[in-house]
Amino acid sequence: MPDAIDLIRAKRDGGRLAAADIRWLIAGYTAGAIQDEQMAALLMAIYFRGLDADELMAWTEAMISSGERLDLTGLAAPTVDKHSTGGVGDKVSLILAPLVASCGAAVPQLSGRGLGHTGGTLDKLESIPGWRASLSNAEIAAMLASVGCVICAAGDGLAPADRRLYALRDVTGTVESIPLIASSIMSKKIAEGTRSLVLDVKVGSGAFMPDLASARTLAETMVGLGNAHGVRTSALLTRMDTPLGRAVGNAVEVEESVAALHGQGPGDLMEVTLALAAEMLRLAGLTADPAAAIKDGRAVDRYRAMIAAQGGDPDAPPPSAPHTEFVTAQSAGRLQALDARAVGVAAWRLGAGRARKEDPVSAVAGIVCLAKPGDAAEAGQPVLELRTDDPARFDRAREALAGAIEIGPDAPEPAGMVLERIG
Amino acid sequence: MPDAIDLIRAKRDGGRLAAADIRWLIAGYTAGAIQDEQMAALLMAIYFRGLDADELMAWTEAMISSGERLDLTGLAAPTVDKHSTGGVGDKVSLILAPLVASCGAAVPQLSGRGLGHTGGTLDKLESIPGWRASLSNAEIAAMLASVGCVICAAGDGLAPADRRLYALRDVTGTVESIPLIASSIMSKKIAEGTRSLVLDVKVGSGAFMPDLASARTLAETMVGLGNAHGVRTSALLTRMDTPLGRAVGNAVEVEESVAALHGQGPGDLMEVTLALAAEMLRLAGLTADPAAAIKDGRAVDRYRAMIAAQGGDPDAPPPSAPHTEFVTAQSAGRLQALDARAVGVAAWRLGAGRARKEDPVSAVAGIVCLAKPGDAAEAGQPVLELRTDDPARFDRAREALAGAIEIGPDAPEPAGMVLERIG
Repeated sequence: MPDAIDLIRAKRDGGRLAAADIRWLIAGYTAGAIQDEQMAALLMAIYFRGLDADELMAWTEAMISSGERLDLTGLAAPTVDKHSTGGVGDKVSLILAPLVASCGAAVPQLSGRGLGHTGGTLDKLESIPGWRASLSNAEIAAMLASVGCVICAAGDGLAPADRRLYALRDVTGTVESIPLIASSIMSKKIAEGTRSLVLDVKVGSGAFMPDLASARTLAETMVGLGNAHGVRTSALLTRMDTPLGRAVGNAVEVEESVAALHGQGPGDLMEVTLALAAEMLRLAGLTADPAAAIKDGRAVDRYRAMIAAQGGDPDAPPPSAPHTEFVTAQSAGRLQALDARAVGVAAWRLGAGRARKEDPVSAVAGIVCLAKPGDAAEAGQPVLELRTDDPARFDRAREALAGAIEIGPDAPEPAGMVLERIG
Repeated sequence: MPDAIDLIRAKRDGGRLAAADIRWLIAGYTAGAIQDEQMAALLMAIYFRGLDADELMAWTEAMISSGERLDLTGLAAPTVDKHSTGGVGDKVSLILAPLVASCGAAVPQLSGRGLGHTGGTLDKLESIPGWRASLSNAEIAAMLASVGCVICAAGDGLAPADRRLYALRDVTGTVESIPLIASSIMSKKIAEGTRSLVLDVKVGSGAFMPDLASARTLAETMVGLGNAHGVRTSALLTRMDTPLGRAVGNAVEVEESVAALHGQGPGDLMEVTLALAAEMLRLAGLTADPAAAIKDGRAVDRYRAMIAAQGGDPDAPPPSAPHTEFVTAQSAGRLQALDARAVGVAAWRLGAGRARKEDPVSAVAGIVCLAKPGDAAEAGQPVLELRTDDPARFDRAREALAGAIEIGPDAPEPAGMVLERIG
C-alpha cells in the first residue's frame, strides 16, 4: 500500500507519481482517509514541480472517477460546450448557449460558482426572478432535448474530488498551478458528457493567466486532456485587458446579454462570442451561420425558452441599484486603457462577487463602462458608473480603480480580440 | 491584519515575510486559529523558497516566545549543552553529560523523543529499570545543582509551537528543510536556558544531512541563530557513514556507554565523545581534561549519580533479547564499509525505534556490529548480531541490510571522525 508521506516527498523531490498512486491519493482524499494537511503539502509540491503528461492524465481520470459521468449520447443533436477561464464582464455563456443551440447543437453548460473578481454565470442568471440553477440529471437531459441548451449548476455527483480539492487550493495558495487548473476544469467538463468543447482562455490583466505564454500552456494542456478522453477540444486565446462589453455585474450583464442576442451588443463582446460560436459549430460538424441566427431572432427566442424552462421570467425588468456614483475622466483625450482587473475588483467590492462560497451576491451591484479604450473623453466626463446596494462600499471600490483609467492624446492601436486558436 | 493565504502566496512566489507576519502566523497556528492545511502549504513553500536570515530569526523567536524560557543563571557552574542531529548508534549524550559535568560544567540535556531510524536518547535510558524521563523545572534545576547534569524530556512548556509544527512536518514531507530544522532545534535549545551549546552535525548515509555542504549550511545556520540569541554556540561536523561504536539499540547502547565511561569504548565513539567534550569545556571556559575524568572514575561516578537521581538502577543488569540471529560475511577480506543507514533501518525494524510518537520501543531490540570497517573477516564469520523480541521481524531487518556490508581485499583508508569545526 502506498504511503502519503512517501508520495509527497517523491513529488517534492521532482519524482513521478505512478498512476496507481495518484488514484490512491485522490480516492483516499475524497473518502477522508488522507488529511487536508497532507493534500495541501502535496498540492504545494505540485505547484513547484508540476505534473507530467502521464501524471496529469491519471490525476484527471481519478477526479472523473470520483463521481458520475453523464451520458448525453441519446440526444439527436451533437453536444458541444464552452468553458471560459474567467474574465471581467465575461457574460459570453449567456449569449453563446442559446445562440449555438439555435444553430442546431445541444449545449450542456454546467457551471460552478464564481469566486473572486471574475464573477460567475450562475450568479448572473440568479438575478432573474424565479430562475433556478439546480437541476436533476433528468431535467438537464430533458432541456437539452427540448430547448437545446441549459445553463445550470454542476451537480454534486460530478467530480466530487475536484470540489474538495478546489476548496483546499483556495485556502492554501495553490490555485495558480497549470496542471491543477487544467485537471480541475477538464475533469468536470469530461464528466459532464459533452462530445465537443471549446475553451476560452483569457489573457491579460483581468484574467487568471496574465501572459500569453502561460495561457498557451494552459490551453494546450486542457486541449490535450480533452482529446485524450474522447472529447473533441480546441481553445481560443482571447484578450482580457479591458472588461468585455460595457457591463460588469450580475443583472447588468444579463441585460447586456439580451441586447447582444437582439444584435445590439458591443463590438468586442460580439467578436468574441461569434468566434467562439463558429468554433463550437465547427467542432460539432454544423455549418449554420450564428450571425444570421441573431438577426432573424432565433437566438433570442432560444434564450427566452431556456430562461423560462428554469422558472425564470425573461420579461422581468432588470432591477435597478439604489445607489450610483460616477468615476470621471481626469483630463481630455482618448481613453487608452481601462484596466480589467481594477474594474473587476471594484465591482466585487461593490457587492457583485463573493469572497467565500457562502457569501451572498448582489443582483444590482456592478459597474457600467460608459467609455471604452479608443473612445474620446472630456475632462470631468463620466467614464464608469458604479452601482451598489450599500453606499459604504463606494470608497473601497474607488480605491481599487486608482490608475485604472488611462487617457492620452491619440487613439490606441485597434487590436483583434482573438489572439490564437489551439487544437 | 495579515491574511494567511496572502502570506502563503508571498512565500510561494519568493517574497519575504515580515517579522510581524511571522509572529502572527506562529501565534495563530499555536492557538489553532490558523489551520493545519494552511501551515502545511506554507511549510512546503518554505521547503522550496527557504527563509532568509531575518525571516529565520523571526521564525525562531516566535517559536521561543510560544512558551517559557528556563532560567539557569542561578547555578554556580557554567551551563553547556550538546545537541546531535542524530546518527545510528549515537549514544554520545549518555557519556558526554556526566563526563563534562565531572569536569566542572552543568549540562542541561533536554531531549525529544526519537522518530525514525536514528533512535532517541530518552528511549535508550528508559531501558534502565525505574528511570524516568519527565522532570519538573524545579527537579531539573536541583539536579544541575547537585549532580551537575540531567538528561530528561523537554517539557511541554518549551517552544510548544515547535511541537505542533514538528508533528505537522513529520506527516507532510516538510522535515528536510534547513531553516525549519535549524529553527526547530535552536528554539528548544535556546528556551532550555543553556549558556553555551555544541552542535554535533552528523554527515553521511546514516545522518539527516547526507552531504558535507548541506551539513555545513545547517551548522552555520544554527551557530548563527544561537549566537544571535546570546547562546555561545559552535558545531562539529562528524562522520556518520557507519554506526558509531558497535551497539545500535536501546539497552545495548546504554551498556556500551557505561563501558565507554569505564574507558573501554570503541575508538570512533571515544574520538567523537572526547572532541565534543573538549569543545563544550572550551565554550564553558573550563580547562579540565576529560580523558583524565574517565581514567580516574569521576565520569562514571557522575553517570551513576545521574541515573539514580532519576529513579534508575545503575547496577541493573542489561536485559537480554529472547531472539538473536547473525548476518555473516559473504567472502573473506577486510570490511570496507558497513552502511549506517541500513543498520539503522534494520535496528528500527527489529523494534528499537518507533514510526509514530505513540508507538512503544523495545529495550532489547537492536544490532551489535561484531566487525567494523577495517576489521578482517572470514567468509561465514558473523558480522552483525540482530536482536529482537519478535522473530517475525528478522526477515524485514535482513532486507534492509542487503548490500550494507562491503568486503574487499585491502584495508580502507583510516579517516578521522571530526570533519570540521564551525563557530
